[in-house]
Amino acid sequence: SIRFTGEVLHDVQSDYQRVRILESYKYGKMLALDDMVMTTENDEFHYHEMISHPAVFIHGNVRNVLVIGGGDGGTIRELLRHSKIDQITLVEIDQEVIVACKKHLPSIASEFNHSKLKLIIDDGIDYVRKAKSSSFDLVVVDGSDPVGPAEGLFTKEFYKNCNRILCDRGILVAQGESPKFNENAFIELNTTLRDIFGDKNAPVSLFYVPSYPTGMWSFQYGFKKKSDIKVPEKKEQISSFVNHHNLKYYNYEVHCASFALPNFIKKQLDLS
Amino acid sequence: SIRFTGEVLHDVQSDYQRVRILESYKYGKMLALDDMVMTTENDEFHYHEMISHPAVFIHGNVRNVLVIGGGDGGTIRELLRHSKIDQITLVEIDQEVIVACKKHLPSIASEFNHSKLKLIIDDGIDYVRKAKSSSFDLVVVDGSDPVGPAEGLFTKEFYKNCNRILCDRGILVAQGESPKFNENAFIELNTTLRDIFGDKNAPVSLFYVPSYPTGMWSFQYGFKKKSDIKVPEKKEQISSFVNHHNLKYYNYEVHCASFALPNFIKKQLDLS
Repeated sequence: SIRFTGEVLHDVQSDYQRVRILESYKYGKMLALDDMVMTTENDEFHYHEMISHPAVFIHGNVRNVLVIGGGDGGTIRELLRHSKIDQITLVEIDQEVIVACKKHLPSIASEFNHSKLKLIIDDGIDYVRKAKSSSFDLVVVDGSDPVGPAEGLFTKEFYKNCNRILCDRGILVAQGESPKFNENAFIELNTTLRDIFGDKNAPVSLFYVPSYPTGMWSFQYGFKKKSDIKVPEKKEQISSFVNHHNLKYYNYEVHCASFALPNFIKKQLDLS
Repeated sequence: SIRFTGEVLHDVQSDYQRVRILESYKYGKMLALDDMVMTTENDEFHYHEMISHPAVFIHGNVRNVLVIGGGDGGTIRELLRHSKIDQITLVEIDQEVIVACKKHLPSIASEFNHSKLKLIIDDGIDYVRKAKSSSFDLVVVDGSDPVGPAEGLFTKEFYKNCNRILCDRGILVAQGESPKFNENAFIELNTTLRDIFGDKNAPVSLFYVPSYPTGMWSFQYGFKKKSDIKVPEKKEQISSFVNHHNLKYYNYEVHCASFALPNFIKKQLDLS
């Protein structure tokens, strides 16, 4: 449901993909990688708030974070609202994405100079292969769809390494695809995460993204230890965080609601 | 995100609108009124389950129902699963919609011969104007967008009459538009319902409809008496209903989750 104005603000063929910034009628400027819309000024907050805050609140004591992908900067902007976090390592394969977003989407790519950020331009798959065991409280896989450079972000080997580098109570959260638009990738990722983290430790959350096909997207989790997803004891803490940071999507009720799955999705995932 | 095959199975200009049945690649056959997709075989259950079951369970003792619009038949199919309901009066302005759906969408228009159904081909706005006070437990406004024949379904006079014809603990539920696609209609309807039913008695629910623009749609409620939307005491009853009828979208968790609103929507509606 996005219409472009036809104005192309940026168009670079990187070593990995075509990186473009386009102007749209209703969604503001948007980042497109190859032919897929990745993020838009108008609704990026749905995705970036929901990939960040539920995981941080469920864990409760996140200090050291690894973000794979996330070159638009929206995920680190949200994570950095949590003052307890000491360090975020962002591993983005394609420097051209960062260059384009810093130039044209400054409200999203606003934190690349933050003192807690360690920016690495490298292959995230390689990075997790070589990273030390038990070194991150939270691993965020903020990549694109499983074609092109992000294909390796959907393999079992990659998620085994993510599990290995997580600390004892660590949490993984990954861009989980759409149950209606790319059903196979959605299901296969859940199968992989349940194989590695266990059936009870791989919940799926849903959220609305008007600018994505079907408007229905997911994040998929891996919990190293069984965790309570609804965190009722943190309701007050979450409300005051939400108010303080003037969040536009996430709140306590939305946190809980995002884990409620319609029956057809439970059936896809073979959940009772 | 819908692509048509180009096959047109039905194309009739009625007194009110152009009624077409089209074939699509991923959503099966679909009903289009003028140029708007109303329902598709593939995802109609999202809409029809969510317009029906939450209201019936919140009320708890629905016997007599009025449906305005709903000519595709999906809403009465879902309502009739509730054996306590004695009668459903369906008032559809355009007979051609029913004719088209009975012929081409028989899985949706499956209950037009049900003994509990009283079918009236007439203007729903006129019908509620003339209807007796306090005569329905549930009024369902299952109309299209506020252009063409459905325009009058968004006026204050219409909803005042809906309120008047509801019994003491009656509930109104209306197709509520999209907070991102037609923001003004969404907000204005809520303003109207809060004016008539009171600020605390006009909740809004959200649900996913992949075939609608932005994928994010709403139902809006009016409660004649303050009601608990989350019905925790009915959790077991709902689960057994859901299993018995093999529902594809609605379940107890989804019921509760649908009333959780992201902050930007609370702000649109001026809710704290």
